[in-house]
Amino acid sequence: MAEERVQRRLAAILAADVVGYSRLMGVDEEGTLARLNALREELLHPKVTEYNGRIVKTTGDGTLIEFPSAVDAVQHAVDVQQALSRRNADLAERERIDFRMGVNMGDIIVEGDDIFGDGVNIAARLEGIADPGGICVSSLVHESVRSKLDVAFTNLGDQALKNIAEPVRVYRVELEKPANAAREVPGSD
Amino acid sequence: MAEERVQRRLAAILAADVVGYSRLMGVDEEGTLARLNALREELLHPKVTEYNGRIVKTTGDGTLIEFPSAVDAVQHAVDVQQALSRRNADLAERERIDFRMGVNMGDIIVEGDDIFGDGVNIAARLEGIADPGGICVSSLVHESVRSKLDVAFTNLGDQALKNIAEPVRVYRVELEKPANAAREVPGSD
Repeated sequence: MAEERVQRRLAAILAADVVGYSRLMGVDEEGTLARLNALREELLHPKVTEYNGRIVKTTGDGTLIEFPSAVDAVQHAVDVQQALSRRNADLAERERIDFRMGVNMGDIIVEGDDIFGDGVNIAARLEGIADPGGICVSSLVHESVRSKLDVAFTNLGDQALKNIAEPVRVYRVELEKPANAAREVPGSD
Repeated sequence: MAEERVQRRLAAILAADVVGYSRLMGVDEEGTLARLNALREELLHPKVTEYNGRIVKTTGDGTLIEFPSAVDAVQHAVDVQQALSRRNADLAERERIDFRMGVNMGDIIVEGDDIFGDGVNIAARLEGIADPGGICVSSLVHESVRSKLDVAFTNLGDQALKNIAEPVRVYRVELEKPANAAREVPGSD
């Protein structure tokens, strides 16, 4: 304990990514950018504010958002994915933008406005294995929110995530099902 | 999601309690109070500050402390218990004061300066099953800090805690053993 201690805090981390971003940009670069910017301004950024989140960084199609609460992070993700799903239903196929989302929580390292650590990396990996329009969360998040939110989860088992030392138990948020009904589904938890 | 959302945040919660407080008070009321106050002023409160903690409340012999980081909360608990152990070694038996400590983390509800929720209640229950001079932590805390701290843990299994709906997996911090050696001990994790 002689070494200087780094600044740490518990946080919930949401990683979001546009599905097929390169393909969308290849088909219609200016249109995709304009639609993505409109989406951010009209829907995504206001929702981050509503749920007390902070946008840590935006990288092309990817966004990393920090929330002080895991409950707020998951509720935010569900709210945004459902709003995007409704919005996409009114659009032509080539104009639709879908996101994958991953939510993790952990003791992250804070340096200025940036955040680091396994907790952040795992959020990005969870996002990578989510379905288009879907949300994956770690067992830490699942355990922290399951009794506090009317949201159904399906246990996807322990998964080896790239560059993460230990397997992570992954849960998929069931967006389609009414939460109370989905809780009865075998395999959900 | 129509209901008004309560304010939540992720936090690590440390519950600490004086071992045999009623007995100590019965034997020497003024002396015990004076020793406890001196201990708080000279050791306990400065350590809370050092590890970025916030004393939420003090109730006779009990203290509830909130930390923004689980790593800081556990490191604080280890630091304080080791300092108390050294301090007690120089004192007559009747002058010794020992603490039990429990550390949990979770999405707690915040109202003004007070905190509420299962996350808080579980910390108090973990403290109740700790040994005198010892520390028990939940599996959430263990999972969050085990790769980040040079501290050894022993898995005490799933425990039914009073008034807590689901069993909680409890880990004991091994204060006596050098962490690297203790990691090799069967049963530690």
